[in-house]
Amino acid sequence: MNQHIGKQTVQFGLQPVIAAAAAIAGKKEGEGPLSRYFDKVLDDDKWGEETWDKAESKLLKETTRTAIDKAGLAVSNVDYVLAGDLLNQCVGAHYGMREIDIPFFGLYGACSTMAESLSLGAIIISGGCAGKVACATSSHFCSAEKQYRFPLEYGGQRTPTSQWTVTGSGCAILSAEGTGPKITHVTTGKIVDMGISDLNNMGAAMAPAAADTLTAHFEATQTGPENYDLILTGDLGTVGSDILIDLMKREGYDISGKHNDCGKLIYDAEKQDVHAGGSGCGCCASVFCGYVYKQLQAKKFSKVLVMATGALMNPQMINSGETIPAIAHAVAVTA
Amino acid sequence: MNQHIGKQTVQFGLQPVIAAAAAIAGKKEGEGPLSRYFDKVLDDDKWGEETWDKAESKLLKETTRTAIDKAGLAVSNVDYVLAGDLLNQCVGAHYGMREIDIPFFGLYGACSTMAESLSLGAIIISGGCAGKVACATSSHFCSAEKQYRFPLEYGGQRTPTSQWTVTGSGCAILSAEGTGPKITHVTTGKIVDMGISDLNNMGAAMAPAAADTLTAHFEATQTGPENYDLILTGDLGTVGSDILIDLMKREGYDISGKHNDCGKLIYDAEKQDVHAGGSGCGCCASVFCGYVYKQLQAKKFSKVLVMATGALMNPQMINSGETIPAIAHAVAVTA
Repeated sequence: MNQHIGKQTVQFGLQPVIAAAAAIAGKKEGEGPLSRYFDKVLDDDKWGEETWDKAESKLLKETTRTAIDKAGLAVSNVDYVLAGDLLNQCVGAHYGMREIDIPFFGLYGACSTMAESLSLGAIIISGGCAGKVACATSSHFCSAEKQYRFPLEYGGQRTPTSQWTVTGSGCAILSAEGTGPKITHVTTGKIVDMGISDLNNMGAAMAPAAADTLTAHFEATQTGPENYDLILTGDLGTVGSDILIDLMKREGYDISGKHNDCGKLIYDAEKQDVHAGGSGCGCCASVFCGYVYKQLQAKKFSKVLVMATGALMNPQMINSGETIPAIAHAVAVTA
Repeated sequence: MNQHIGKQTVQFGLQPVIAAAAAIAGKKEGEGPLSRYFDKVLDDDKWGEETWDKAESKLLKETTRTAIDKAGLAVSNVDYVLAGDLLNQCVGAHYGMREIDIPFFGLYGACSTMAESLSLGAIIISGGCAGKVACATSSHFCSAEKQYRFPLEYGGQRTPTSQWTVTGSGCAILSAEGTGPKITHVTTGKIVDMGISDLNNMGAAMAPAAADTLTAHFEATQTGPENYDLILTGDLGTVGSDILIDLMKREGYDISGKHNDCGKLIYDAEKQDVHAGGSGCGCCASVFCGYVYKQLQAKKFSKVLVMATGALMNPQMINSGETIPAIAHAVAVTA
C-alpha cells in the first residue's frame, strides 16, 4: 500500500522499476568525463535541423525512442509519457512527442523536471493506473541562452557564478514489474524564494529549495546522509552545492561526504570553461539516465537520492523587479 | 482497484470526490451570462498589481485560497497542488503558489491544463498517495495577447475565427473521502497535429485532438453521447465546436445534442464582441469550477464529461514554419 508520510513524501507499496534509461548529449558534454555513459553524442548540436529549438525537440524524441527500445518495448506498450523542457510553452517536448503516439502529460518544473516526471510517473504506476511510463526531459545550450539571457552572437561575457546549460536529454522507462533499480519514495518540493534575483546565480537561488526538500525527506523517512551512497542534486553547480552543504549543516546533517551534483559531474571544470558547472533540465536527465542509472544497475551504488532543482522565474518577471522562486523534488532509488 | 482500460483511460476504484471548487473572473467575464456563478468578479483586471503577469499570479493564488476555504480546509491539510498557466515558464502559477505552502507539481498543457490537473490529481488520490489535492489554472487576456499576438496598445484587428482569452481562474479540491461529485474516469490525450498554422484559428487546430480523445473515451468505457448530460469542451469556440461535431459524426457519434463549449458559454456572443468565443486555461477552469460544478452539486447534471483542449505551440515555432500540435484530456464526473 502506498503511504503519504510526513508532509511531502510518498512511500510506495508497489515500487516502480526503472526498466531502462537512455541519454543523448551534445558535443561539449561528449567531451566531458561522462562521455562513455551516453547512448549517443552529437557531432553538431543543430543535428541537421533549422533551429536550435527544433534540434532540442529531436533530442527529446530520439532519447525517448532509444529508451523505449532499450526496455524491449514498442511505443504502443507505453501507457503514458511525462515530459517538459525549458522552452517557452515547452515546445521542445510538444514537437518532440508529436511523433510519438503515447498519451502525454506535459510538465513544467524548469530544471527539476526529471525528478518531477519520475515522481509523477512512479505515482501513476504504483497506484495501478499504468504498466509502463516514460519520463523524459531535455535542454539545449543555444536555445536556453537565446531565451533566458542573450543570443549567442552577442558574445556576452559570463560571470563567475553563471552555469552552462547542458545540451542533452534523458528518458527513463518505469514499469510495474520486472527487475532493475526501484523507486522507493518521492518527496515533492514546495516553492521556496529567498530573494535572489541574479539570473547568473541560479545555484544560490535553488540551494534553499534543495535544503528544504532534503530535510523534509530525511525527517519523513527517518533517514540521514548515512543511508545513501549518493545524494545527487541536479544543477546547483559549485556555488549552489557549497550553499546546500552549509544549509544542511544548520539542519544538523553533514552531507559533504555523500553529496554530488550533476552540474559538477558532467563537465571537466578545469578544462571546459563552464564557470560554476552545468545546468538545465538535460543536466540531471542525462547524468541520471546515463551515468547514475548504469552504476545502480551494476550495484556500484545501492541507494541514491536524486534531487533535481528548478528556478521558476522567467526573464520578464526579473526585469519587473521580482526574485527567483525555486523548487526541488527528490526521488529515492534502490539498486 | 484502479484499471487502465483501452489505451488511454483509467477507471478509478476509489473515485476522488470534488469536495469544493472556486472561480474568480475578470470584468468582461463578469458581464457575461455566467456572472453569478463566480466567487468573485474583478472591477479592474490589473487587481492592484503593477503588471498583467502579476495580476494573473494573484488571480491563481486567491482562487486557490478560496477553494481551500470552501472545502473547510487549512492550507496545511492539502497534500499537493497541481497548477500551470499559459505564461512563459508558467510564472502565473509559480509566483502565485510561492505564497501557498503546499508541495507543488507544475504542469503545462496550454488550455488543456484544467483537465490535466484534474486527471493527475485524481490519479494521485485514487492511488492512495494523498488525501487532498488542489487542481488549478488561470489565464489573463492582457498577458496572453502580449505574449502570443500583439501588445494591446498596438490595436491589431481580430479575425472572425479568433477567440478571446478569458481572464479567470478556477481551482478544484479533490478528496479521498466525503460527499460531492466524483471523478470516475480520466482519458489522457495524445498529441495530434493536423497541419493548422493560423494562430487566430485555435479552435480548428484543437478540434481533431478533441475528437481523438473523445472517441478513445467512448470506446474504452463503452459509452456514447447518450450516457452523458453534457460533453463540455474547454475552448474550441464556435468554429472548433462545429468541426468537432462533424468529426465525431464521421466516427459514428452524434454529440450535437449533448455538446457545449466553455468558450461559448462564458460570453454573450452577440453583445460582447468576442468573435469565435472564449479561450485560455482560465476558460474551462472558471466555467467548470464556477457554473458546471454547482450544477453537479445541485444534481441538475448527473454525468458530465469535461474535456479541455490545448494548442501546444509557441509563436516562435509558428514563425519558423511549424504547425500547431494540440491535445485534449477528458475527465468523467458523476454527481
